[in-house]
Amino acid sequence: MKITDIYNTQIAVGDPPLLNAAGLHAPYALRIIVEVITDVGIIGLSEIPGSEKIYNSLEELKPHLIGQDIFQLHTIKNLIQDEFGKQEDQRGVAPWDQRLLVHLFSAIEVACLDCIGKKLDRPVVDLLGGRSRDKVPFSAYLFYKYEGAGGELGFDMDSNAFGWLKARQEEALSPDQIVSQAKAMCEEFGFQSIKLKGGALHPDIECNSMLALREAFGPDVPLRLDPNAIWSLETAIKYGKKMEGILEYYEDPVRGQKKMGALSKEVNIPLATNMCTTSFEDIPSSIQFGSEHIILSDHHFWGGLRASMELNKICQTFGRGFSMHSNSHLGISMAAMTHLGAAVPHLDYALDTHYPWQVDEVIKGGKLQIEEGFVEVPKGPGLGVELDREQLQKLHTRFLECGLKERNDEVEMKKVNPDWKFDLQRW
Amino acid sequence: MKITDIYNTQIAVGDPPLLNAAGLHAPYALRIIVEVITDVGIIGLSEIPGSEKIYNSLEELKPHLIGQDIFQLHTIKNLIQDEFGKQEDQRGVAPWDQRLLVHLFSAIEVACLDCIGKKLDRPVVDLLGGRSRDKVPFSAYLFYKYEGAGGELGFDMDSNAFGWLKARQEEALSPDQIVSQAKAMCEEFGFQSIKLKGGALHPDIECNSMLALREAFGPDVPLRLDPNAIWSLETAIKYGKKMEGILEYYEDPVRGQKKMGALSKEVNIPLATNMCTTSFEDIPSSIQFGSEHIILSDHHFWGGLRASMELNKICQTFGRGFSMHSNSHLGISMAAMTHLGAAVPHLDYALDTHYPWQVDEVIKGGKLQIEEGFVEVPKGPGLGVELDREQLQKLHTRFLECGLKERNDEVEMKKVNPDWKFDLQRW
Repeated sequence: MKITDIYNTQIAVGDPPLLNAAGLHAPYALRIIVEVITDVGIIGLSEIPGSEKIYNSLEELKPHLIGQDIFQLHTIKNLIQDEFGKQEDQRGVAPWDQRLLVHLFSAIEVACLDCIGKKLDRPVVDLLGGRSRDKVPFSAYLFYKYEGAGGELGFDMDSNAFGWLKARQEEALSPDQIVSQAKAMCEEFGFQSIKLKGGALHPDIECNSMLALREAFGPDVPLRLDPNAIWSLETAIKYGKKMEGILEYYEDPVRGQKKMGALSKEVNIPLATNMCTTSFEDIPSSIQFGSEHIILSDHHFWGGLRASMELNKICQTFGRGFSMHSNSHLGISMAAMTHLGAAVPHLDYALDTHYPWQVDEVIKGGKLQIEEGFVEVPKGPGLGVELDREQLQKLHTRFLECGLKERNDEVEMKKVNPDWKFDLQRW
Repeated sequence: MKITDIYNTQIAVGDPPLLNAAGLHAPYALRIIVEVITDVGIIGLSEIPGSEKIYNSLEELKPHLIGQDIFQLHTIKNLIQDEFGKQEDQRGVAPWDQRLLVHLFSAIEVACLDCIGKKLDRPVVDLLGGRSRDKVPFSAYLFYKYEGAGGELGFDMDSNAFGWLKARQEEALSPDQIVSQAKAMCEEFGFQSIKLKGGALHPDIECNSMLALREAFGPDVPLRLDPNAIWSLETAIKYGKKMEGILEYYEDPVRGQKKMGALSKEVNIPLATNMCTTSFEDIPSSIQFGSEHIILSDHHFWGGLRASMELNKICQTFGRGFSMHSNSHLGISMAAMTHLGAAVPHLDYALDTHYPWQVDEVIKGGKLQIEEGFVEVPKGPGLGVELDREQLQKLHTRFLECGLKERNDEVEMKKVNPDWKFDLQRW
């Protein structure tokens, strides 16, 4: 089963004005939809974060991959390494991973596994050793935000929206507003644990938001706070002490493995990371420094689904918890995350997902259902999702029209507050 | 694709009187041939070390596995864990792993992957991410031994044998005899690296054997010595110093991770192990103590082919080399080792195999070919080997007749030398 062509389509997905340590979400999140075409008529899908650089690299890669057998994933990885290994970016300072190789390999590997699953008439989870569970737990993912719906509406509101879609547009800059956001999101999707993206407002407000969530939801709903590494060690200790017994885990409050290791000696809350231990190369020093208790994997950032299974085994071997990080994404990524989440033998924490924040979709039948906080493994072979070509065309046209070429939350924030700038350590 | 039945057949394989730290090989090595039968008519094969206990456990497991889907390897692992997890043996003191769970899971997993490969019309290597290489390097594996052919002949010689089969029968108790054995084996199979099983004779003889091999083969043929953890730290340092610059690696000269870590500080030779780091549970302390440079995996002992791929990733992540351990085995194990050896991305050392010592075979077409020290991935779907039922019946009859129920090299040695006993540390 050989690759005969690859279609890479850049799309722009409406995204509300969500705040984080790096600034503000633009009205559109960029994704790339990858279709791997094979000589037996099977098409494999994947979805990865979008940027001009990743898109151009995928296009550049195409002639090297045409003719390759979709089972030869080690060979494909070596080809990508040969082509782009020397250009590999080091991890930037922004709170997401900018490296190229892992994105490219994830894009191709997931699509190849989708092809293999379709060929075998088996879901992708079965190519990863089968189901460790039938449905996968996800967590609510709260954001401080400005008022606005995002997408074409930008900071305006869609006055026809109701329920979660109404709450999704509302401002959330205080503990009370965060509790309202949480209630609306949990009512709609039934989430049984709650994460707040922090690092956006003063730590007093963020800590008080967690205390308010605890009061509103009680001790049975696990709570997590993610200051995106923008707090000093002193700040993280000070507020950490106030949240002992309240947080299920404390995600990247400080920057780097050494500070995380130091923090874990001072505060009695498990530490989680998707910023200080972000690749296999980081694992030995993570063990040395005792940087975290839980690694938040992301198949887009760790080089695909099989690499994530290997990370799961490493977490199990070294007594680390395993969960999943997310960016703004659509249903193809959600399907891949769900197959992986169903396969991993070692999973004690509900996964992150931005999915409720994105109203757009590129898969047939609309968005995958989140019920009682769980997503069932999609039925059907491969990833179990099909591309809605009309939607793909619409979101691609929007990409062409919106003018965005890469994610830059700092630029977006400067449009609202020209004096704002990103700091490695703000509080 | 569901399991409808499992056939477990105990066989006895002729084995010469090879010496090691635990005593003497019996005239027969015991193996179990496992056939997993599915509802689509596909039969999956595997081969594991034999013992009454493992056989009985496989039989006991059978009703729990019938009806299971062969893709649900996580579920199957959990079933085996539930059934036998509480009875799990701890690792014994003998130089092989006596634990039950990993053997059982390996037996079933390999057979299931053989079924999946046959269903997909793809070799097992393609289920492990595809080929990292087309042919897999193996090492010569020398033994001190008494005169004799093993099997029905026991300590007698087959006077019709010539070439390697003649050399295979000859006594090897001195450096010169080891060099002769090496020359005959390398001439027959083209091996490009050489391992000597040590721990059997006085360290002077074993060290001198390595020096004689170096003189005979020159610096381009990597040499390895495996004293099977029976030397004291002082002995290992003393002889290690004499073999610096001579050995490619020094395998388990001392017992346990702490002593191995201490040795690695004193002797400038990479240390390899299949005795001090033998399971995922041992990895964290291996990192802590710096016990070894190279882990010798064995899919029979680490819980199957996918677990071995995970171990390979761990080795790569922590800067450890990866190679493979072997016991006396036939072609089904050889095929599985070759598929795994072809798949692993991280492989710098030729693999161990006892295969030249076993003349018997259970696969159609006779023994897999070793050419210039390499074995090609078998052609055909799954493992690419088929059972020769006539041979299986013959080796099973021999099992019934020989009376052996488990491997016990100490008992065999006492038949020759009644005063001999196994020591944890002999020299």
